[in-house]
Amino acid sequence: MLLEKVKSPKDLKEMSTEELHSVVTEARQALLEKLSQHGGHNGPNLGIVEMTVALHHVFDSPTDKFIFDVSHQSYIHKMLTGRAQAFTDSNHYDDVSGYTNPKESDHDLFSVGHTSTSLSLANGVAKARDLKEESYNVIAIIGDGSLSGGLAYEGLNNIVEQATNTIVIVNDNDQSIAENHGGLYTNLRNLRTSKGTVEDNFFKALGFEYHYLDEGNDLNELIALFKEVKDTDHPVLLHIHTVKGYGFKFAEEDRENFHAGGPFSLETGEYLSTESTTPTYDSVTTDYLIEKMANDPKVVVVNAGTPIVVFSKEQRESVGKQFVDVGIAEEHAMTMTAGLAKNGAKPIWAVFSTFMQRSYDQISHDLALNSLPGTILVFSASVNGINDESHLGIFDIPFLSHIPNLVYLAPTNKEEYLAMLDWSIEQTDHPVAIRVPVNELNETGVADTTDYSQLYKNEITQNGTQVALFGVGNFYELALQVAEKLEADHQVKATIINPKFISGLDKELLDSLEENHQLVVTLEDGILDGGYGQTVASYLGDKDLKVINYGVDKRFHDRYNPADLLEQSGITTDNIVQRILSNI
Amino acid sequence: MLLEKVKSPKDLKEMSTEELHSVVTEARQALLEKLSQHGGHNGPNLGIVEMTVALHHVFDSPTDKFIFDVSHQSYIHKMLTGRAQAFTDSNHYDDVSGYTNPKESDHDLFSVGHTSTSLSLANGVAKARDLKEESYNVIAIIGDGSLSGGLAYEGLNNIVEQATNTIVIVNDNDQSIAENHGGLYTNLRNLRTSKGTVEDNFFKALGFEYHYLDEGNDLNELIALFKEVKDTDHPVLLHIHTVKGYGFKFAEEDRENFHAGGPFSLETGEYLSTESTTPTYDSVTTDYLIEKMANDPKVVVVNAGTPIVVFSKEQRESVGKQFVDVGIAEEHAMTMTAGLAKNGAKPIWAVFSTFMQRSYDQISHDLALNSLPGTILVFSASVNGINDESHLGIFDIPFLSHIPNLVYLAPTNKEEYLAMLDWSIEQTDHPVAIRVPVNELNETGVADTTDYSQLYKNEITQNGTQVALFGVGNFYELALQVAEKLEADHQVKATIINPKFISGLDKELLDSLEENHQLVVTLEDGILDGGYGQTVASYLGDKDLKVINYGVDKRFHDRYNPADLLEQSGITTDNIVQRILSNI
Repeated sequence: MLLEKVKSPKDLKEMSTEELHSVVTEARQALLEKLSQHGGHNGPNLGIVEMTVALHHVFDSPTDKFIFDVSHQSYIHKMLTGRAQAFTDSNHYDDVSGYTNPKESDHDLFSVGHTSTSLSLANGVAKARDLKEESYNVIAIIGDGSLSGGLAYEGLNNIVEQATNTIVIVNDNDQSIAENHGGLYTNLRNLRTSKGTVEDNFFKALGFEYHYLDEGNDLNELIALFKEVKDTDHPVLLHIHTVKGYGFKFAEEDRENFHAGGPFSLETGEYLSTESTTPTYDSVTTDYLIEKMANDPKVVVVNAGTPIVVFSKEQRESVGKQFVDVGIAEEHAMTMTAGLAKNGAKPIWAVFSTFMQRSYDQISHDLALNSLPGTILVFSASVNGINDESHLGIFDIPFLSHIPNLVYLAPTNKEEYLAMLDWSIEQTDHPVAIRVPVNELNETGVADTTDYSQLYKNEITQNGTQVALFGVGNFYELALQVAEKLEADHQVKATIINPKFISGLDKELLDSLEENHQLVVTLEDGILDGGYGQTVASYLGDKDLKVINYGVDKRFHDRYNPADLLEQSGITTDNIVQRILSNI
Repeated sequence: MLLEKVKSPKDLKEMSTEELHSVVTEARQALLEKLSQHGGHNGPNLGIVEMTVALHHVFDSPTDKFIFDVSHQSYIHKMLTGRAQAFTDSNHYDDVSGYTNPKESDHDLFSVGHTSTSLSLANGVAKARDLKEESYNVIAIIGDGSLSGGLAYEGLNNIVEQATNTIVIVNDNDQSIAENHGGLYTNLRNLRTSKGTVEDNFFKALGFEYHYLDEGNDLNELIALFKEVKDTDHPVLLHIHTVKGYGFKFAEEDRENFHAGGPFSLETGEYLSTESTTPTYDSVTTDYLIEKMANDPKVVVVNAGTPIVVFSKEQRESVGKQFVDVGIAEEHAMTMTAGLAKNGAKPIWAVFSTFMQRSYDQISHDLALNSLPGTILVFSASVNGINDESHLGIFDIPFLSHIPNLVYLAPTNKEEYLAMLDWSIEQTDHPVAIRVPVNELNETGVADTTDYSQLYKNEITQNGTQVALFGVGNFYELALQVAEKLEADHQVKATIINPKFISGLDKELLDSLEENHQLVVTLEDGILDGGYGQTVASYLGDKDLKVINYGVDKRFHDRYNPADLLEQSGITTDNIVQRILSNI
């Protein structure tokens, strides 16, 4: 197998064209084998096999610098830079991360995971090169889907301004995770259909020397193009048309479904895991929103390039103009939501916690400062969410809860969740975010009749003495378990509190605890620093109550086992019980 | 005076062209009078007098919706919407804010202050209109300087995608606060010189119907153009060339200096306040950086459209390629800084606290996740900074200090500040932010020889008992004053601590306090929630130490008096002393 002989990109330099073609074939085969067993980003990597082989054949990484946008399409790059075993030997499939990672290889410059950053990173890398008076190529590889992010545009502008060697490769497969949205995509389509010759070229308008390659899965053409621009003394942009999922017909046919996923059958193209029919918090969200929209044309769901959070393709079509996908453009999603709320619509922005952080200023400045009644549904905000260091969803409480006016809610069961959501959509006074639970769906069967306009009113669900447990959202169940053990094994009946609001305190309730408690314990599913618990500790700082806050360390935890991380953070029933006992 | 008769835009509807011209003349005259006495945004408003009169003559605000980007150019709009007195009567100059403000008028849709948001807001307002099946014009007015922000590009893309009535007015005066940077600006220049006909038109590339008006200070032409596009059923973009500072020759001649400022002489164009020659933290920053750069070509200062933070125009020119202004594009500034640091340069990003929040994701994901040694110099992070609700600099500790890997430092005097800055630039292990002091320059005359690589080591500057005072950065002086009063009036000798690091705790020191203290008090110049003090309270929650945290309420405080706000927050020497005495 030729691929296994490629220990570094140097080994590709002397290969004949025929051998390079063999490497392409073998790499795609290895990729399909691994993906079908292991899961991962399918379409993006399948489409870029030829391009990656050509890049490493023509350029000299790591002297020349490759910067992959998002870097979910860097699998072939990993194969060609000493990490082939992670794709050819199933015992080693987990040796590499799903993104570029400097800890793995000098050929990986950055740990990346969010979109649209590659051009700005490249601009910095190239500027440092120029300051040091060094000479090599800086190459950014960005997909068309990532071009919708404003940061990519800022990067394009500044690369042109710098006016030295930077090679921007736009890998245009006419697809983001889902279909693309926005004016730019019409221009890309026009460029593809005209083979790069259409009037009013977006990239030329910004000042780039522009090259178009229609056959972006043709190895020979790619090599020729890269050789042509190598060592350029000014910025160039290569618009390369590839086929997402190339070489695997099921992926070419269903590009959205084959963007990424778990194991699948190479024969039938079916994903192996059967979809659960049990309701989840995601599915009840979808059901609720579809019904709500049917009854009220002013309800509108906004999304930034990850529509799968709430709606399948069919569902998106069924709700029509009441669903807006703005492309990967979280800032726009938030600010547009503010505009919608201002003018009397009832907008809900559905977003993953990790991507929401891209709109911090817009949440604060456009939504919260203006006190507009938009709703943010925060998904995967949990230690049990995505566990790549570049996609962590555990910072949301710290970065949201100090924003004035914003009401952040953490439901603990289905009824509470839907009551909060409905209140949020119908009220007109507050910006609201709701931390969608990640646990298994918990149905109480009892409608929640709480008046959420009474902000920051917490619920005492069990009256006890000595210790009061605040179980925040996902960790309310943990509070119940701790209380149960305290009572069963140690005859301590704890007070249990469901705080519901995580952006402010129920001061009356906190004050009342002094009477017959010695200890307050907060449990939250996120990092400790800047979290809910610390506001409790601060408020009670000069009272006669001790406080213990539980949360995880502020670190970019990477590919961790959630149970292990919680245990390291002391967040186990036994440990919490022991620490409580030693403090009362 | 005709202007005073304009009680609402309706009054402009029936005016003759001649009368409208008189309104223009009177409005500009009133503007100059007020600006020369009161200060404000000069150039942006002078350039847009004709345009604003034409807009209100042709369109029907508030049925038609005007959304001003940044809204620092909305003074004429305020004059024409019932607020003329705030410009014609010096007793009422402070009746209106410097930005649009819904609390003042229904003609102001949003409280704005950060750039590049108007298009996304307009997109949301227009979408809500469409959902409600209403019919009117939505008009966004954005300056060329604001077009460098990625959010503006996201807005353009999505306005085209929406494909219904939205009128985008690009007010192109060929100038941001300073000169413009980036590929787009070459396109704008080419469009101006070709009168809108150049090949590869940026706006047409994105799919806009494009109109160019070269004489953007010609009232008649403006009226004709607005009438032509009024009630369009699809997005149109009007590229209007105006003269920044139009009608006041000093402002036309020195556009950077006359972007904004305090009172000036109408006769000579000189600002009245003489520049202080006393050194400040800003001036020592400039001096330090210029010398550092002269000695090390790898040192590079990055800025996002507010170069005045550190360098005058002449200084920028003198440091040449070691200064990069990326335009108003904070995300790019941060991510480029990460790229620079990765490739061995020594980048310093100088930024106002309020604008830094626009790059939260880039700080976290590009700089901190990658542990890159970039330096962020955070200016105006204080209750004593900018006091407009849209420009507050008091949220930085909450949104920075929970980001993993990032080391946030708060110096208390000049020597400490420069030692921290030098350490930060030369070390290669940590992303660092430094909270530049806002107080008067405090020189100790003693070099600071602290080894800052010993992270989170606090300094005890006075050993005492009973109470320990943590004076964070700007509030270290306050800690000294409290200690002095405690000792002089109450014979309590407090321990005084300069924590220096605000992104982590000196746990050893905190543990040691238990021995002979009953109370820990933290003083920080920012909001309480999510701040430094709360991490202290949390850490000490189960120790035998009470904790009191001082900081201001999380609110969008608007045009406040800093002393009053501090008093309302209990942050006065007397109050702190009293509360301490009642707790020890």
